[in-house]
Amino acid sequence: MQGQMQAQPLLISTLLTHAERHHGSQEVVSRRVEGDIHRTTYAELASRSRQLAKALAALGVQTGTRVGTIAWNGYRHLELYYAVSGSGAVLHTLNPRLHADQVVWIADHAQDHVLCFDKTFLPLVEAVASRLATVKHFVLMADREHMPTQTAIPNLLCYEDLVSSQNDAYTWPQFDESSASSLCYTSGTTGHPKGVLYSHRSTVLHTFASALPDALNLSARDVVLPVVPMFHVNAWGLPYSACMVGAKLVLPGPGLDGASLYELFEAEGVTVSAGVPTVWQGLLGHVQSKGLRFSTMTRTIIGGSACPPAMLDTFEDTYGVQVIHAWGMTELSPIGTVGILKGHQQALPKADQRAIQSKQGRGVYGIDMKIVDAEGAELPWDGKVSGELMVRGHWVVNQYLKGDTSPLVDGWFPTGDVATIDADGFMQITDRAKDVIKSGGEWIGSIDLENIAMAHPAVAMAACIAAKHAKWDERPLLVVMKKPGAEVSKEELLAFYDGKIAKWWTPDDVVFVDSMPLGATGKMLKHRLRDLYQDHLQAQPACAPGTPVSA
Amino acid sequence: MQGQMQAQPLLISTLLTHAERHHGSQEVVSRRVEGDIHRTTYAELASRSRQLAKALAALGVQTGTRVGTIAWNGYRHLELYYAVSGSGAVLHTLNPRLHADQVVWIADHAQDHVLCFDKTFLPLVEAVASRLATVKHFVLMADREHMPTQTAIPNLLCYEDLVSSQNDAYTWPQFDESSASSLCYTSGTTGHPKGVLYSHRSTVLHTFASALPDALNLSARDVVLPVVPMFHVNAWGLPYSACMVGAKLVLPGPGLDGASLYELFEAEGVTVSAGVPTVWQGLLGHVQSKGLRFSTMTRTIIGGSACPPAMLDTFEDTYGVQVIHAWGMTELSPIGTVGILKGHQQALPKADQRAIQSKQGRGVYGIDMKIVDAEGAELPWDGKVSGELMVRGHWVVNQYLKGDTSPLVDGWFPTGDVATIDADGFMQITDRAKDVIKSGGEWIGSIDLENIAMAHPAVAMAACIAAKHAKWDERPLLVVMKKPGAEVSKEELLAFYDGKIAKWWTPDDVVFVDSMPLGATGKMLKHRLRDLYQDHLQAQPACAPGTPVSA
Repeated sequence: MQGQMQAQPLLISTLLTHAERHHGSQEVVSRRVEGDIHRTTYAELASRSRQLAKALAALGVQTGTRVGTIAWNGYRHLELYYAVSGSGAVLHTLNPRLHADQVVWIADHAQDHVLCFDKTFLPLVEAVASRLATVKHFVLMADREHMPTQTAIPNLLCYEDLVSSQNDAYTWPQFDESSASSLCYTSGTTGHPKGVLYSHRSTVLHTFASALPDALNLSARDVVLPVVPMFHVNAWGLPYSACMVGAKLVLPGPGLDGASLYELFEAEGVTVSAGVPTVWQGLLGHVQSKGLRFSTMTRTIIGGSACPPAMLDTFEDTYGVQVIHAWGMTELSPIGTVGILKGHQQALPKADQRAIQSKQGRGVYGIDMKIVDAEGAELPWDGKVSGELMVRGHWVVNQYLKGDTSPLVDGWFPTGDVATIDADGFMQITDRAKDVIKSGGEWIGSIDLENIAMAHPAVAMAACIAAKHAKWDERPLLVVMKKPGAEVSKEELLAFYDGKIAKWWTPDDVVFVDSMPLGATGKMLKHRLRDLYQDHLQAQPACAPGTPVSA
Repeated sequence: MQGQMQAQPLLISTLLTHAERHHGSQEVVSRRVEGDIHRTTYAELASRSRQLAKALAALGVQTGTRVGTIAWNGYRHLELYYAVSGSGAVLHTLNPRLHADQVVWIADHAQDHVLCFDKTFLPLVEAVASRLATVKHFVLMADREHMPTQTAIPNLLCYEDLVSSQNDAYTWPQFDESSASSLCYTSGTTGHPKGVLYSHRSTVLHTFASALPDALNLSARDVVLPVVPMFHVNAWGLPYSACMVGAKLVLPGPGLDGASLYELFEAEGVTVSAGVPTVWQGLLGHVQSKGLRFSTMTRTIIGGSACPPAMLDTFEDTYGVQVIHAWGMTELSPIGTVGILKGHQQALPKADQRAIQSKQGRGVYGIDMKIVDAEGAELPWDGKVSGELMVRGHWVVNQYLKGDTSPLVDGWFPTGDVATIDADGFMQITDRAKDVIKSGGEWIGSIDLENIAMAHPAVAMAACIAAKHAKWDERPLLVVMKKPGAEVSKEELLAFYDGKIAKWWTPDDVVFVDSMPLGATGKMLKHRLRDLYQDHLQAQPACAPGTPVSA
């Protein structure tokens, strides 16, 4: 017996149509590559997206055609989000921080037919254009005035010319909601990148879940500034959720330094932002050094990697900005868990609340999760036992693009994270499966050790890696980048662990570095550190401070 | 090209599974028919729902089988919500306030196989049992101790015996998300009731949309008390949305008087409630007469019929409770619009904000709406022009149960409401299409006239109906029920309109009544008043106060 309600597909175009009809005068503000601030509205954005959809069709873009972008967060990129997916083609956002060879490999693997890019990335595209075998059209996201007079790219098209070549008389097509809408490649640390192919259905359901009060809590009263790039897992879905709820969008373009961000936060009345910890470090550094305050920002979503507790304290105690810790993956569209307190936790002492907020959060409706032992048996939710985190749900990957073997285990996606889950459902990542330090047969979680180091006033960034050890197989080695002008000795840092963890977890040694290797999405590349320092302890004296004592 | 994300059906059972796993210890508190307060948790509710699903299967309930309920808001009713729909059968909630003949007609039309009911309704069911041709099993929602010693119902089953006859080893089945989940009949004022058959998909999508910050704004920190009955459009979806977000649920059972509700609000720390204006009148009456305050309630959702502005002012100004005005219909699952201010409206003077809040609200994502003229042409969103409101969307009816002609017009459902929509998308119902008063070829909206009368301190309830008029075809006639002990004259009431509306809109006369005819869902039955008073003005002197002057 079938229900008798209206059957309509869940399509990305309906998010834009809703914003246009119900929030047509709401603003979308962008800091452009050109340097100025650009203002538009959802009504205008919708109209231009329809023009763009027609222009792309004229370039041969059809249902399923991949359209690549290499672009900052800005209104033109947003128009591409809707014009490409809305018309039934597939938006492929490329990460400009990747090596040129990787860009070529990914664009070729995706078989991009068109490549649209910001002027910032003209040198990159010029360098690779001749190697992009499938790309038939290159589009510079600029107006005629900003087109280069000379370029190595043949027949370089002007974005604004394309838009203005069409009127906006276009009706978004209706099609199967399981159709592919967009494509992101994971920045795998080993092997080739893997493509995750989202559908309209997975995207709209993710949008619903991500906007809920216990997730990103988005409304028409919000002014949202996604620092997280639109080339990185669809900026955590904010280009979609902002349209669903009619929030004002502020897109920072290339201005991701603390001063540029702060200026935009204040000028546009930003209420909520989202990004990785490294970005917030830059912002907080600017705000602290100038003695500034946030006058409208009420909360910030921190994900991508764990938020150091010290950063959480600074945001909340010094600046009154609520930190919403979230966890996700490219394979999860990306949102899996969000760290909002439950009702009964609101009465807890602040320190206990902070401890909960430091976890990665609880599962949003639509995501199932479990932790399993090495044999795949489910482990209890007691907040103590850790195991590999497995997830499944409407917006979890089923298969990678052109994948041959399923990444799933009994229908669950193995995240590669090692985590605990407590009785309230709060998940805490204790390590990446590959970053766990196995000392004398016992696991030591590197993240705890890093967080403690990060709480030291002289430490800017810290990584804890497994170094080879003759007796214990592996022992923790702390790699530290100091804050500019700050001083701290190895002995002081190791003593800083006293009383905070089991004695045998204390790192065996400290290596000071001038810079940390960061990946394309701002995450620390710990495998690079391992390559450099995994033999470090082999050359050490046998009884350095912190040598493990048997349990 | 298909996306490559996991394919899972949107099933109602997943809401309960989520609540069980992620909010297992969250409370569900019920005032029982037995008189006491009952406490359980989502974990226990889920376990008992599985037991119940097995027990129903043993009674022959299969995929698509209709299971009727006549019950208050309580945990057993909630278990039926999930056990019936979750197992693939169809939950049919009957309205106990209907006439016995209507109950028989509806249960027969729905072909209910099982009928579960609270002890309150034993006399009703005893009176109709022999006429319920399709019902094979009658289940009293009580434990053995509360079963009647004698009853006219053959083989009356005991709910708690059924539950305890099974263990909870049961896996919710997976099936097509478009399958029927539940059935509500519209309490049509004319003709036979019409059945709206919801699907799992329509219900889950409605649940997502209704929980968003700009809709009911539900979180795990909320304590939700649905006054709106679970036999009336699924209590506006709160039994589903509370599970989705892990909110504490407080179910008031038969105690819908002001004193009982207030006691529960305070004892259980209710943060948000939902119901029709008539219920709030009772609650406010109690609170005002006893000089009480609400210590935890922050907001209340008012729908079903328009919230009188005076009630809005009292809630917000006197009690600090935010009023969220919502509009919906059985055919819309029910939520269509919700009246939450937009960002730029937050800076408006309070009076302007109240005027916006008095409107029925703006469309939630997932609902398209438009207003049309008599020829079906779309009218502008200027807040002035009114036309018939048409809607479409994932949770809008496509066809009534066993319907032969489509209720849709070009794919849109005509609501029968006459409304304006302003530039911000706020919809305001000016009348039911059938309640509009056509005076000398011009429309007069009855709701405006009723709201003004309701603002008079002596008026408890007011209705404005079209009375036949020799010269103007129809003229407004005000029907008023005074507050207990209050006095007001016809002349004073008519003078109360001076300056508030166009002179020619002023009602021609006032009829005072001792009680108002209310329908099964607490709405005024204006057609009854029309039957009684439509000829009232024919017997009046020619020049009563308020006689229209030509424009």
